[in-house]
Amino acid sequence: MAIASSLDSVISLAKRRGFVFQAGEIYGGSRSAWDYGPLGVELKENIKREWWQTFVRSREDMVGLDSSVIIPKAVWEASGHVATFTDPLVECTSCHHRFRQDHLIEAFEAKKGREAKDGMSEIACPNCGTRGQFTEPQLFSGLMKTFLGPVDNEAGLNYLRPETAQGIFVNFNNVLTASRKKPPFGIGQIGKAFRNEITPGNFIFRTREFEQMEIEFFTAPDEADAWFKEWVEACWNWFIDLGIDPENMRRFDVPDGERAHYSAGTIDLEYRFGFQGSEWGELMGIANRTDFDLGAHSKASGTELSYFDQASGERYTPYVIEPSFGLTRSMMAFLVDAYHEDEAPNAKGGVDKRTVLRLDPRLAPVKAAVLPLSRNEQLSPLAKELATDLRRRWNIDFDDAGAIGRRYRRQDEIGTPFCITIDFDTLEDKAVTVRERDSMQQERVSLDLLQGYLAERLLGA
Amino acid sequence: MAIASSLDSVISLAKRRGFVFQAGEIYGGSRSAWDYGPLGVELKENIKREWWQTFVRSREDMVGLDSSVIIPKAVWEASGHVATFTDPLVECTSCHHRFRQDHLIEAFEAKKGREAKDGMSEIACPNCGTRGQFTEPQLFSGLMKTFLGPVDNEAGLNYLRPETAQGIFVNFNNVLTASRKKPPFGIGQIGKAFRNEITPGNFIFRTREFEQMEIEFFTAPDEADAWFKEWVEACWNWFIDLGIDPENMRRFDVPDGERAHYSAGTIDLEYRFGFQGSEWGELMGIANRTDFDLGAHSKASGTELSYFDQASGERYTPYVIEPSFGLTRSMMAFLVDAYHEDEAPNAKGGVDKRTVLRLDPRLAPVKAAVLPLSRNEQLSPLAKELATDLRRRWNIDFDDAGAIGRRYRRQDEIGTPFCITIDFDTLEDKAVTVRERDSMQQERVSLDLLQGYLAERLLGA
Repeated sequence: MAIASSLDSVISLAKRRGFVFQAGEIYGGSRSAWDYGPLGVELKENIKREWWQTFVRSREDMVGLDSSVIIPKAVWEASGHVATFTDPLVECTSCHHRFRQDHLIEAFEAKKGREAKDGMSEIACPNCGTRGQFTEPQLFSGLMKTFLGPVDNEAGLNYLRPETAQGIFVNFNNVLTASRKKPPFGIGQIGKAFRNEITPGNFIFRTREFEQMEIEFFTAPDEADAWFKEWVEACWNWFIDLGIDPENMRRFDVPDGERAHYSAGTIDLEYRFGFQGSEWGELMGIANRTDFDLGAHSKASGTELSYFDQASGERYTPYVIEPSFGLTRSMMAFLVDAYHEDEAPNAKGGVDKRTVLRLDPRLAPVKAAVLPLSRNEQLSPLAKELATDLRRRWNIDFDDAGAIGRRYRRQDEIGTPFCITIDFDTLEDKAVTVRERDSMQQERVSLDLLQGYLAERLLGA
Repeated sequence: MAIASSLDSVISLAKRRGFVFQAGEIYGGSRSAWDYGPLGVELKENIKREWWQTFVRSREDMVGLDSSVIIPKAVWEASGHVATFTDPLVECTSCHHRFRQDHLIEAFEAKKGREAKDGMSEIACPNCGTRGQFTEPQLFSGLMKTFLGPVDNEAGLNYLRPETAQGIFVNFNNVLTASRKKPPFGIGQIGKAFRNEITPGNFIFRTREFEQMEIEFFTAPDEADAWFKEWVEACWNWFIDLGIDPENMRRFDVPDGERAHYSAGTIDLEYRFGFQGSEWGELMGIANRTDFDLGAHSKASGTELSYFDQASGERYTPYVIEPSFGLTRSMMAFLVDAYHEDEAPNAKGGVDKRTVLRLDPRLAPVKAAVLPLSRNEQLSPLAKELATDLRRRWNIDFDDAGAIGRRYRRQDEIGTPFCITIDFDTLEDKAVTVRERDSMQQERVSLDLLQGYLAERLLGA
């Protein structure tokens, strides 16, 4: 089990080995967004693929969609975002740093275990330490603007979507007609979303540009509660099946008054990221959005978004159950949970410390590494040929630099499930040594059986 | 071979069957962006996966990246985009519609086969027909702005990337260090880009929000020309291998004066989309960007982006060969090229017209359809079980509504390679009839051999 204190180690590893780089680093860097390096993009793609396979392709009651990021203002007026997608902004009058008031209050409560007296007067500025010197809160819109067309005016004003969901709602009729699905059915979407966060931070946890994996599941109103429960289970199980320790996850039933404007019920799944102050963070939420969105868009657009049920002879506006996953947050949770430090035997008969990412093989960015024992005329061509062959199917690393133990360590810390060593015996017996990441067990496998050996153990990855 | 006149049929099919919907349609719609429906998102994902597999995962000299869409202004100042990423805008003084001057001139030349005399005086407004009544051209920036942070001011001004490339250049050192690659090597990236086009149009061909698949390949300066030629071939072959008719593709060597500011040589690959006026359109470009970008960012950021070659003992700024693919344009080309109308035998012994998308099986959005001959208690459960089983591996359709011939037509027009019919004989012989899309040949296949049968013919899709 990954522990709280490992968060900094994970962040350091992620940067050093090319999972995540700071965006615009050579120009001073930004906390608004992060860039995903060679290993990060593979890990992120693997998470997406597993999600899409589980929740879209393998289900008869789901289809996919990919709607645009830039959406006309009218959509966000109807959805309620223009009016209510705001955060309370306060400024420390001493150092002029800005904060989200609700985050300051939450952090205080998490630390002290009680509510703050007299509003903000007990709370210290996280930047300069001055206590209780904040401006009155101002509501600040989280929507990011852009302008289309030649003039920056109201007519060209568009917003970058703060959630992928609205692109699904406005396409409800299109999808219903084209896919010939009937409720209960859902539409899944993976894509970028943008929120003008007051205080981005905690690595890739809170950023202004991020990725979501969202499902809008349309049901008859009287079946909404049952589907809500079912989706909470399905989402929980997805994380557990992909290796998250259940001890590091919990459900949070969001109370009345704290839910988003559209929700009649929300359960957040939280992960124990181990942040300073509050160790838990929201991984995803499952909300019962009722008929709020389809109703609002029907009214605002004049196009009725509803369903005629031939069996009952009734027309109704479906309720929507929304499981909304943070993709980049999920990736961070998979990394934190997979991070372990243990010991591995060394060449001198002792043990060395090692760092190992125990990622599920389906998520691991590199599936296997081909390691010729030494760089020479006999082993190198054979090893390169094997790597080329395996690359037709998997993402494969090739490393012929340094001692074999050190090369194992390099693969362990990026979570590569298998290391394939080619040695001089390989020239005779046409077999290789396959080392498994977690157990460090080694097995001699014939070259002509290697593909099948790996395929079976990589769980279809 | 797909012919020019089929473009409208393809667009109509794409909308009707759920490949592509107009963004914000219920609010009047937009030509700035399009939404990809259940079939469109699968087709687009399949194109991405093939590209990533061919150009990134299967090559030892390539790694991937996924950098952010929102990038600080400093990056675009250094890259030259703030100064030069502009289009000449003219307005018809009669109807006040706005156009890109270069597009009006190109369309005139394509139609008349000669240059226009006296600049714009011979050219008619495409909207109202008035001849030669245009304003003087104004340079109009194609960069789309947004503001980060609580105030819309210069300090928070950021641009949405008009190309994914710059995110690669600014990460050059990060990737070099983390991946331990050496030139010649490349970085591939797939992602959204945004350009404030004056006149979006031609369906998904020219939009303000679109997707690119880009490679920046870093070489020693004296090897750049050879790699340029090699990449032109590799890109051409990728399209042909995935089924594009070579008769519908051509190379265009972009002459001096028409190339982007960074390019010492550009070859565009064009596809015969069959647009009105000019039937060919740019699918992608391969450019020799020289050391322009790494040099410019080194100078502007103060971080040297260069490579020390241990073999020669010399440090140099790599040249960059850039194959830049339009993903959404590629998808449109695959659709147009696959579109065919032919004849299929009907139940009365005659023939019916049919529409068929001859998509490569690797690209087809649905790999197979399970079609129980009729909806009844014996066949339906068996058919559903088979569909569920096949969905573990592929995107599978299930259709039990209407005559079998009509169900074949529905699958043909979305390009499904195989239809699997379950009939009453299936209950006895545990076999199904598999119909191949293009030949319409039918074969009886035992249920326990079906997965292998499909796997072999779907080319690893």
